[in-house]
Amino acid sequence: MAMGARLCCSSILFVLVVLLLAATTMARGGVTSSFWRKSEATEDMPMDADVFAVPPGPNAPQQVHMTFGDKDGTAMTVSWVTMEEAGNSTVMYGRATDKLDMAADGNHTRYKYHNYTSGFIHHCTLTNLERGVKYYYAMGFGRTVRTFWFTAPPKPGPDVPFRLGLIGDLGQTAYSNSTLTHYEATGGDAVLFMGDLSYADKHPLHDNNRWDTWGRFSERSVAYQPWLWVTGNHEIDYAPELGETMPFKPFTHRYPTPHLASGSSEPYWYSVRLASAHIIVLSSYSAFTKYTPQYKWLEAELKRVNRTETPWLILASHSPWYNSNNFHYMEGEPMRVQFEQLAVDARVDLVFSGHVHAYERSFRVSNVKYNITDGRCTPVRDRRAPVYITIGDGGNIEGLANEMTQPQPAYSAFREASFGHAVLDIKNRTHAYYTWYRNDDGAKVAADTMWFTNRYHMPNHDDSATKQ
Amino acid sequence: MAMGARLCCSSILFVLVVLLLAATTMARGGVTSSFWRKSEATEDMPMDADVFAVPPGPNAPQQVHMTFGDKDGTAMTVSWVTMEEAGNSTVMYGRATDKLDMAADGNHTRYKYHNYTSGFIHHCTLTNLERGVKYYYAMGFGRTVRTFWFTAPPKPGPDVPFRLGLIGDLGQTAYSNSTLTHYEATGGDAVLFMGDLSYADKHPLHDNNRWDTWGRFSERSVAYQPWLWVTGNHEIDYAPELGETMPFKPFTHRYPTPHLASGSSEPYWYSVRLASAHIIVLSSYSAFTKYTPQYKWLEAELKRVNRTETPWLILASHSPWYNSNNFHYMEGEPMRVQFEQLAVDARVDLVFSGHVHAYERSFRVSNVKYNITDGRCTPVRDRRAPVYITIGDGGNIEGLANEMTQPQPAYSAFREASFGHAVLDIKNRTHAYYTWYRNDDGAKVAADTMWFTNRYHMPNHDDSATKQ
Ligand SMILES: [Fe+2]
Ligand SMILES: [Fe+2]
Repeated sequence: MAMGARLCCSSILFVLVVLLLAATTMARGGVTSSFWRKSEATEDMPMDADVFAVPPGPNAPQQVHMTFGDKDGTAMTVSWVTMEEAGNSTVMYGRATDKLDMAADGNHTRYKYHNYTSGFIHHCTLTNLERGVKYYYAMGFGRTVRTFWFTAPPKPGPDVPFRLGLIGDLGQTAYSNSTLTHYEATGGDAVLFMGDLSYADKHPLHDNNRWDTWGRFSERSVAYQPWLWVTGNHEIDYAPELGETMPFKPFTHRYPTPHLASGSSEPYWYSVRLASAHIIVLSSYSAFTKYTPQYKWLEAELKRVNRTETPWLILASHSPWYNSNNFHYMEGEPMRVQFEQLAVDARVDLVFSGHVHAYERSFRVSNVKYNITDGRCTPVRDRRAPVYITIGDGGNIEGLANEMTQPQPAYSAFREASFGHAVLDIKNRTHAYYTWYRNDDGAKVAADTMWFTNRYHMPNHDDSATKQ
Repeated sequence: MAMGARLCCSSILFVLVVLLLAATTMARGGVTSSFWRKSEATEDMPMDADVFAVPPGPNAPQQVHMTFGDKDGTAMTVSWVTMEEAGNSTVMYGRATDKLDMAADGNHTRYKYHNYTSGFIHHCTLTNLERGVKYYYAMGFGRTVRTFWFTAPPKPGPDVPFRLGLIGDLGQTAYSNSTLTHYEATGGDAVLFMGDLSYADKHPLHDNNRWDTWGRFSERSVAYQPWLWVTGNHEIDYAPELGETMPFKPFTHRYPTPHLASGSSEPYWYSVRLASAHIIVLSSYSAFTKYTPQYKWLEAELKRVNRTETPWLILASHSPWYNSNNFHYMEGEPMRVQFEQLAVDARVDLVFSGHVHAYERSFRVSNVKYNITDGRCTPVRDRRAPVYITIGDGGNIEGLANEMTQPQPAYSAFREASFGHAVLDIKNRTHAYYTWYRNDDGAKVAADTMWFTNRYHMPNHDDSATKQ
């Protein structure tokens, strides 16, 4: 009897402990947003939509866009397309519209894709930019001249504030237009674009005219501030059935990246230093196993990161390493398996991805104990690890990904199947305020906000477990 | 007291059950060979070694080698190098040395690698071969003519026997020479070569003269029978510090593969049909995630496999998916994660790899239950699954990999750190006799033999658990 009583007592204690643990887990567990919407058929805006209008004037430059022209932002590469003739590849630039006293000579290229022949695609790198200065620039000399402007990025430094826009999988639907409008209202200084630009490949024969419409649509932002390009699967355009087997052909002809400046041998992986952030762009669709160029480059690049100068270390890849949506579930596993340990060891702050047409934010988790025989393959909370954010919700033709795995995995902190965009407001070396804006309401709504603390300067603070 | 006695009794029973289970596991467990040898420094044979001798005569063709020129072996691509001048790229061939009544016109290429300039590398495809016929062929017309011979492969069919040589990571040491000599004595009809040919990249500036010596060394076999090339990491030759950033530059200039014949867009992945086998070559060092050309090709290729015509389905990749050696441990994980389910679903018979400089054979195992949250990531016995064989033990400059993980994982059936080669003797649609020959004894010794049964015709027979 006495023994039975003791057993009973133990059992009760055990049950209590289990309940307590369960309660703790639930309190710290993830949220699946109750804001929920059906996936609707999403058509691209018609070819004659206003946002695709060709600028007036003979051979007028169109599809103007810019990206970093070097690693630190003292150069910008400006690209545009002319349709009637090659014309002039020179850009004039300066501090006022009537004082464009600097000149840069570019060049142009063309490509054929199945039955499509591109316009004349110009690329011109503006150098010797002074930090933080507003520049005006113009091109199209000899025929129709168009003028734009941008502000050169600040000099990298540990406490330099910056507002980085985060957009993925934009496409060219009415939702895409809403996302871009909302981002313009938010007002970031540059965009880290998570891949899948035009979705031209969803049209018959990968209709490359849809690359042109996307270029005209996005000009209103990307002609005025640099966007940093991550390569998505819709950039591959591999179509042996059309005789097109060179991966990334339209994308690489149209969208340069500053890969040479960071010692990369391919445009799909590279890095830049922007304000207080070191941003590393990886390619989900290039080789990345050990010994490959991308692997060797990343390994060397992580050694070049100086957290004293740029405390914020950000990775971007199209395919997420942590995703709890049924869409593209676990597609990022090969890269996670290859690179996660490197990312944890490097104390990466944030990993941004696209690809999944929904929004998700993880806790700080890692899953690096697995050694094929030990059965240890469950993600665990890890303050050394990055937060993973999937923001493939720009609003493209494929519609929303609104089937999530159930129950919500422990690594997932917040998820919602809405279109939107985000901004990362880096305040100083220790803090960054992050906001994801849902945009499917007509008005934009801040639907997920976080204070992120820096892994180099505040390594022991588990920001990801604290909802503000 | 009674309760204590019962507890005691239960404990004894429990211990007995545990012992029984342990005994069963051990009986079915893997073997680490007691044949064990220290890793020794292994130097490449000196540049003036006899096996590297330049054939006599002005501008004599050297480094003659052949591989499949189409998918089914009715064409062979012959390659050779001339050093003094380009010379003639024609091959004459026929059924007797005095009756070379067929002609094929080839072409030549050259490449520079840092401070090295290659000779004139000729490639010429001999077409319209009759199945099973012995052909003589000659090249070097106008200067020094050399003559070789080969037997065209049999017509693919379900019971066509074939002896396939299996060599990996050969290099050009005295051990390499021993391996090649032993393989010649074994007498296979063709070789599936698992990658890492010359190890030229281990020499200063990736000394490409070591590609030439390797070509002359291996000619005595590969000029007389087709070798099928898998791409290894030592073929990448990515060396930005030397200004060399085009992956696989020396390899692709020297060693063609019949990739176009199997609808592949790159030479690193392709397939052939040989006798009763469908052989699929994959590239560990190219992109292979979903949507990439290699992934899309493999997915389509597996649908093209006709097990009624070619019952044996064989995969090859340089980096093993299952390896229990500390050397390169788990390097193959990203590709395993991406492709294992495809391989299991396709009922692949055998997966051959190299890379690890030792020998290992697995049981039929799979590890495909993992879904990132379920903790199920331990390989289990699976009769649907391939046997994995690592045969990176050709004998190269890097020496043996003789540090194995302990204890031997349950997936590993047999492992030994010796140099060697293997042959797969396909007998008919149901049975193939496999032998791994250890070659480090001076004499070759059959050190691991197996009867493999076919996954299509005998899917429920677990050959891998039965040691013959
Ligand atoms: Fe995508
Ligand atoms: Fe290797």
